Amino acid sequence: MSNDWDAFGHALYDYLQEGGKNPWATVIERGDGLVDVEDPRSYFAEYADWPAHQRQAMAFARGRVLDVGCGAGRHSLYLQSQGLDVLGVDHSPLAVEVCRLRGLRSARVMSITQLNSRLGVFDTIVMLGNNLGLFANPRRGRWLLRRFAAMTSPDARIIAETLDPHQTQQPLHLEYHQRNRDRGRWPGQITMRVRYRKYATPWFDYLFVSKDELRQLLEGTGWTVVALVDSEDPRYIAVLAKQGR
Amino acid sequence: MSNDWDAFGHALYDYLQEGGKNPWATVIERGDGLVDVEDPRSYFAEYADWPAHQRQAMAFARGRVLDVGCGAGRHSLYLQSQGLDVLGVDHSPLAVEVCRLRGLRSARVMSITQLNSRLGVFDTIVMLGNNLGLFANPRRGRWLLRRFAAMTSPDARIIAETLDPHQTQQPLHLEYHQRNRDRGRWPGQITMRVRYRKYATPWFDYLFVSKDELRQLLEGTGWTVVALVDSEDPRYIAVLAKQGR
Repeated sequence: MSNDWDAFGHALYDYLQEGGKNPWATVIERGDGLVDVEDPRSYFAEYADWPAHQRQAMAFARGRVLDVGCGAGRHSLYLQSQGLDVLGVDHSPLAVEVCRLRGLRSARVMSITQLNSRLGVFDTIVMLGNNLGLFANPRRGRWLLRRFAAMTSPDARIIAETLDPHQTQQPLHLEYHQRNRDRGRWPGQITMRVRYRKYATPWFDYLFVSKDELRQLLEGTGWTVVALVDSEDPRYIAVLAKQGR
Repeated sequence: MSNDWDAFGHALYDYLQEGGKNPWATVIERGDGLVDVEDPRSYFAEYADWPAHQRQAMAFARGRVLDVGCGAGRHSLYLQSQGLDVLGVDHSPLAVEVCRLRGLRSARVMSITQLNSRLGVFDTIVMLGNNLGLFANPRRGRWLLRRFAAMTSPDARIIAETLDPHQTQQPLHLEYHQRNRDRGRWPGQITMRVRYRKYATPWFDYLFVSKDELRQLLEGTGWTVVALVDSEDPRYIAVLAKQGR
């Protein structure tokens, strides 16, 4: 299988193989031409080095766990070490390989839209590291949330992290949000791709929402906010439960 | 004047304004899709922090100096501090602005192809920091070397830095060199552009040559190698003089 598109996985894999001394940068390109870099190091952070809000949110995990977009496996490996039954899934074949090499017992190559009830019933769905963004857009987000309801136990929790896109004064970002509004998109619906060496992912949408936008997203999905864990920056974690539970 | 293309200048300007705490990355994109980053910090390095071969090469500078591609002015400012009469030129308006803000008395916005004898006669032409690359290709390089001969005194020196592209075992680079050969280009003729935030330079060619290739480049130009200063890596500095001097 060709993995020319697996820029993210290659970055993680090289980082693991070269002990963090990988000389190539991981570049994030936004649809409006903005470029920036990302340090793969954070994908390998140990629990003690996580930001406090991520550590706090772990208390909501229980039972059988699905880690959506597991990356290098930092959250899955921690929950596995706590005795939970964890399945990590990632669209990136090399990310899943990294998880296995790091000792994650259960990891599969799957995109978020491939998840289905044949994987069994989960008690917790984890979407940390801004992975609520994998909802991509409100329409797909609602469809996935309904699907997640069918894949989970009655008392299930979704632990999802995002970033309030409106907590910025950076003109580059405010202009991008306005451009989105003008096109009928939510402000924090970011079109981006990841590049690493000569690898480039396809362009994809990644959704960032404020707390109000999150509540709007949940309408009609059967899920509701039961806890919010704030950080020291615009990131926050929402804990969702099924309505009436 | 629009400077949407002045990615390099914006990176230097922001670095200067924000005291090196600039959160955005400078991304180098090669024609084959390779991406990497560059740290603007090195453009501001003080003499004491330069690599040894650059410090050594300064001994060849004398008289009236033209610094081609002066960037943030690190070489020009040093030579000015040594009492030399220095003109720094750069294609980037914001790089020239950075030089002026840092105290360079004489700096002009000019591309290398705009240089001409109306600027007066120079005793030294400096092209450090891989700026021999500004020759772009052998044809333009020879044309520029002949033009430089007409702009300089009989005992003039060109102090030019490049990097031997063949001193690598990196498959990504070796493949790129072969692709160049297949297309009738010199192996080290790199098509690239610089991106910073939403700014992007046009694509341009930047030439890296081995010592043998350098001698081949000089044929028929009136210039010859009088000294080579090696570094601890593939970079080296060639000191050129007019033939017979």
